[in-house]
Amino acid sequence: MEVLVSEVGPRDGLQSVKQAMPTGHKIAWVRALAAAGLQEIEVGSFVNPARLPQMADAAEVVRDAVTIDGLTVLALVPNLKGARRAAEAGVHKVTIPVSASEQHSLANVNMTCEQAVEEVRRVCALRTELDAGRSLGVEVGISTAFGCTLQGPISEDWVIALAGRLVEVGVDSVGLSDGTGTANPAQVRRLFTRLNRELGDRAGGAHFHNTRGQGLANVVAALEAGVTTFDASLGGLGGCPYSPGATGNIVTEDLVWMLEAMGISTGIDLDRLMEARRIMEDGLPGQETYGYLAEVGTEKGFRYAGGPIAPEGTGRRQQPQPGATA
Amino acid sequence: MEVLVSEVGPRDGLQSVKQAMPTGHKIAWVRALAAAGLQEIEVGSFVNPARLPQMADAAEVVRDAVTIDGLTVLALVPNLKGARRAAEAGVHKVTIPVSASEQHSLANVNMTCEQAVEEVRRVCALRTELDAGRSLGVEVGISTAFGCTLQGPISEDWVIALAGRLVEVGVDSVGLSDGTGTANPAQVRRLFTRLNRELGDRAGGAHFHNTRGQGLANVVAALEAGVTTFDASLGGLGGCPYSPGATGNIVTEDLVWMLEAMGISTGIDLDRLMEARRIMEDGLPGQETYGYLAEVGTEKGFRYAGGPIAPEGTGRRQQPQPGATA
Repeated sequence: MEVLVSEVGPRDGLQSVKQAMPTGHKIAWVRALAAAGLQEIEVGSFVNPARLPQMADAAEVVRDAVTIDGLTVLALVPNLKGARRAAEAGVHKVTIPVSASEQHSLANVNMTCEQAVEEVRRVCALRTELDAGRSLGVEVGISTAFGCTLQGPISEDWVIALAGRLVEVGVDSVGLSDGTGTANPAQVRRLFTRLNRELGDRAGGAHFHNTRGQGLANVVAALEAGVTTFDASLGGLGGCPYSPGATGNIVTEDLVWMLEAMGISTGIDLDRLMEARRIMEDGLPGQETYGYLAEVGTEKGFRYAGGPIAPEGTGRRQQPQPGATA
Repeated sequence: MEVLVSEVGPRDGLQSVKQAMPTGHKIAWVRALAAAGLQEIEVGSFVNPARLPQMADAAEVVRDAVTIDGLTVLALVPNLKGARRAAEAGVHKVTIPVSASEQHSLANVNMTCEQAVEEVRRVCALRTELDAGRSLGVEVGISTAFGCTLQGPISEDWVIALAGRLVEVGVDSVGLSDGTGTANPAQVRRLFTRLNRELGDRAGGAHFHNTRGQGLANVVAALEAGVTTFDASLGGLGGCPYSPGATGNIVTEDLVWMLEAMGISTGIDLDRLMEARRIMEDGLPGQETYGYLAEVGTEKGFRYAGGPIAPEGTGRRQQPQPGATA
């Protein structure tokens, strides 16, 4: 079995951090992530730079990322204007957040759910404007699919109906997102099982946060429901700036360790991932990061799915050597 | 569906902490845990006090705990001598760690696996010495069942065979323990499925650590395999002093939140659990504790399994009020 880990740190992570990472540093980080084996990276978002100045250089980051062999380059876009800019920069796919919660939708993108669906329709239509032979993938992540910090519980029937409407307007793949960190494994299993049944090959991946420590537990439940794409953020960088208290994407390296230990191949090398983490941390001095694997490394006898036994402590952050030159 | 959460903080937690909690404080903590709805508490261990001075007052803690209505009082015992002392103090059940790893067994209790099984046989035989009408439960947790930091991977066939032998010598219930924090959900599902098939109603609960962030993920896998008893530690206090780097029991309050959100009843009140956590923290000044729920509380619309909607932020640690007297 294989799973696609989609790295969202350069987008979801950086947009929640106050300091802006220099563009050259972002590019080096994305390159290090790709070198670690990540096959899909959300490298930035095309939003109003006045609102998120950390993302003002998204086009420049995209233009470098698309030159990396074999990498699928994603960008988040909130609307048609952003999608146009992302397409011009050359992304392979855009991902559009559509909230299942009216209140969150208004707070996050200043549109009702209905208006957001219509905006997605316009983004899908944009594809016909592009050069023949140039394809643009359009994904939607339904945010607050599992609950909303503003509105509370969200009807599961409504989430599934919304997903169906998004497919109708032309979206390639609709995933479910728990940016507010309220999802529990029973709910995850139930909702993704329905999504897969209703949408078939248009059913997308899972975006979980670890707000209540439940992130990887939700991954286990989603795997059972047939989900094969998971968003994660290196070092757990990120959160949702519009959902107070909702911090923490699931941690890429912890997720990769768990999947590989379970015998599920990700194609990602944990030591190289730690190198990418070091680059990220160098570019965000003083920024708090998260994750367990970076502290303890892999266990004795750990092997990648189908691989030979790896050296003990694989994936552990390099500790400064006593007496080493700083 | 119901699950039994077995609190191990007063034993597994305190034995990994350098400072000794005063006896009166332990007693108050155990009472607060029971008041929060915990129905089973491992209140201490009957080990050599020279080795673990924090546990020297175990008998005194037991004598108080057994007066609490409806509470099952457990103690960990490494050998017959400890079991005798625990029985004299009046515990309802003893729990004996038997390692599946020869190397860990020697390091932890200075016995081979074979010697440990024979010691368990003697503990089971002890029960015939007790007064008629006085029952003593005997549980074993097979430690390093999922891997060993010293020895590496452990044969699953061997773990199941060892569990079968323990039943043969008279143990009431045999659980599986990941005190070294290496278990992954696929392994957990596989091993507990086999345990339940082989042992039937003698199959015991799960003891997971969160060393690689996978604790609750393993709970989800174990639930699927039919496990209904889970050890956990308030505030994640604890670890294994003989397994370097293996720290962190799963966090009681995070586990309870997840189970209740999944519709699985635990009988535990999260606000009262926070009160017990405050008492624990007061008794261990400066001690680091863990857990997500204490920071963020429950989400809007949270309800206990089958219960009405709870106030938002249930289970959140009380924040100091601005201007409040310190």
